[in-house]
Amino acid sequence: MNHPIESRDELLLQQRDADGVVTLTLNDPRSFNALSEEMLTALDGAFAAIAEDDAVRCVVLAANGKAFCAGHDLKQMRATPEKDYYQQLFARCSRVMQAINDLPVPVIAQVQGIATAAGCQLVASCDLAVAASSARFAVSGINVGLFCSTPAVALSRNIVRKRAMEMLMTGEFIDAEQALDWGLVNRVAEDERLTQTVAELTDSICAKSAVAVRTGKAMFARQLAMPLTDAYAFAGETMACNMMSEDTAEGIDAFMAKRKPVWRHR
Amino acid sequence: MNHPIESRDELLLQQRDADGVVTLTLNDPRSFNALSEEMLTALDGAFAAIAEDDAVRCVVLAANGKAFCAGHDLKQMRATPEKDYYQQLFARCSRVMQAINDLPVPVIAQVQGIATAAGCQLVASCDLAVAASSARFAVSGINVGLFCSTPAVALSRNIVRKRAMEMLMTGEFIDAEQALDWGLVNRVAEDERLTQTVAELTDSICAKSAVAVRTGKAMFARQLAMPLTDAYAFAGETMACNMMSEDTAEGIDAFMAKRKPVWRHR
Amino acid sequence: MNHPIESRDELLLQQRDADGVVTLTLNDPRSFNALSEEMLTALDGAFAAIAEDDAVRCVVLAANGKAFCAGHDLKQMRATPEKDYYQQLFARCSRVMQAINDLPVPVIAQVQGIATAAGCQLVASCDLAVAASSARFAVSGINVGLFCSTPAVALSRNIVRKRAMEMLMTGEFIDAEQALDWGLVNRVAEDERLTQTVAELTDSICAKSAVAVRTGKAMFARQLAMPLTDAYAFAGETMACNMMSEDTAEGIDAFMAKRKPVWRHR
Repeated sequence: MNHPIESRDELLLQQRDADGVVTLTLNDPRSFNALSEEMLTALDGAFAAIAEDDAVRCVVLAANGKAFCAGHDLKQMRATPEKDYYQQLFARCSRVMQAINDLPVPVIAQVQGIATAAGCQLVASCDLAVAASSARFAVSGINVGLFCSTPAVALSRNIVRKRAMEMLMTGEFIDAEQALDWGLVNRVAEDERLTQTVAELTDSICAKSAVAVRTGKAMFARQLAMPLTDAYAFAGETMACNMMSEDTAEGIDAFMAKRKPVWRHR
Repeated sequence: MNHPIESRDELLLQQRDADGVVTLTLNDPRSFNALSEEMLTALDGAFAAIAEDDAVRCVVLAANGKAFCAGHDLKQMRATPEKDYYQQLFARCSRVMQAINDLPVPVIAQVQGIATAAGCQLVASCDLAVAASSARFAVSGINVGLFCSTPAVALSRNIVRKRAMEMLMTGEFIDAEQALDWGLVNRVAEDERLTQTVAELTDSICAKSAVAVRTGKAMFARQLAMPLTDAYAFAGETMACNMMSEDTAEGIDAFMAKRKPVWRHR
Repeated sequence: MNHPIESRDELLLQQRDADGVVTLTLNDPRSFNALSEEMLTALDGAFAAIAEDDAVRCVVLAANGKAFCAGHDLKQMRATPEKDYYQQLFARCSRVMQAINDLPVPVIAQVQGIATAAGCQLVASCDLAVAASSARFAVSGINVGLFCSTPAVALSRNIVRKRAMEMLMTGEFIDAEQALDWGLVNRVAEDERLTQTVAELTDSICAKSAVAVRTGKAMFARQLAMPLTDAYAFAGETMACNMMSEDTAEGIDAFMAKRKPVWRHR
């Protein structure tokens, strides 16, 4: 008997709190949370559901075990040594990474242990990232003869180019402080305070108007890919729409009256 | 009786020194130098005049009062709750920001107090920025339900993306040292040395050939928006023209003779 | 009698070690290794030869004397004050810079002394850079009336924009620690350990599969210039090809067996 759904549930735990924060937890610690076909399917499904759910406020991408994520499942990859298979696999993985970008709410990586290869790409692909102080990051495919080409796409859009190139060519780890200094993560927390530090960020986001948060998520990456004049035209139109929301009227009125806003759309 | 010109003069003070440094001072401290319609009109007019004036060497954008600039005038915005109005307002503000980019001379932000929302965008839009050590920066629209979409355009072109996203999503302040570390400002000065530190920069620029300074201002942002090969073709052509200037011949000859150059076009 | 080849050989020393590391040494210390027409020709020729040579693993760009490189040869430039000449000269220099980008292997700048104007551009154009702790960097053309337009192209693609603009407008030096903090160089070494620190990087690269290193070099800058979706499509295709290499199979098998890989294509 086949239990695909249960199996997926086990690979990727989902939890939603009262505020609308969804925590997705990579739960395959034995494989260091490898992005196997099954894990990619589970992430794909979870992101698709979140994209449809207006009650979600933000997403935390966490992991169980000693690693955040060690990238692709090398054993599985070696089992089908065909170029077509690889191309489909990498395309699928790239779609998952871009799905993070396309989600209507911010995604925060909560990183403990190691984040390597496509695991490091996962961190780079999230909107925000918090690292445990013992966390380490590498794009280490080069060590096994496989340049981290798809991770390079995300990494080189997160940190300045010589740093990205050094990580990709040497495969060496950087620690959490280095990642913070370079801008790959937003905050570093003592290991035992990792969850709490992420919660400070999600609390901050949940205290905002949902309309504004979703507006920002939808416009940020898109405008960054545009020429300046187009970006301003798009941002101006976006901001005018945002101004027409009831919540924004309430937010501004509350600010001027020096009281707390009461959001209709939390 | 209506005094539009006097009123504008009061809102935005203009001063020009003997070297050709124009200091524009936002002078509406009671509103924290809000970018009201009147202030945008005053800036627009000032930039248009500077663009025509060959004797201007560089511009300092300063502010009176406890704030550098707190962004849009929220009261004014709430008074006309119409999408068309907002769209025109944001388009106008975006034109002012791009006018800084299009000016023929460098613009230096001299930042004291807080620079928030479109005020932070103003800093990001300048070519260079000096902050008082007590200055603070935020894109805080999200706190009133209005994601800082147009400020995001400038901010995300100044600092790496996860840092821009954190500021935009949390609305939290960063201090002057953080802004320096991230590259949003060039220098931090003790509060009482702010003007003097800006003057060191303007002195440095005024000691250069005006032709070279204007050449650089005109080419920098433009080449950055081009693919590499186009950027090099454009830069090469620009530099060949620059070489044909009398001042450049004088500058190189003086350098080789180990004497100070005497610029014809200061 | 004319000795163009011997003269070139003297201007640019070439050395290749047993691992396939080619060290090109700028060897015109009296001119501070100026990028004269002759030096550009020598670099052009060296890069063209390296591009054809499958046994080369990586390139170190070093220099003899007190300077790494002081940029263009000002005396030579002043000798032919014609716009056509300048345009051809800058086009030629830009081709040399882009040849570094187009080489099939990584190029590491080994920087001692000063790297100014096109010399600083050379550092920015390399994939990786190591600086002696006493090294200093400037784009100082502005001091002689010549804005560093072509260096700006490379510099502004290495560090965030306000920092690039400050260097270009003031012409001031930054030291090695500043260059490290800003991401213009990857590592700073005590002066007497410069060569050794570069060797640690080249050793690291030579220990990798040549296929993977060349794959990475060929894809990195190219994907960075593409929109995100195109970049992922290109990177996925690149990575699937990389997976089909014998070395990658060996690398992954060795990793899973916890043994050292034996590369066929070193």
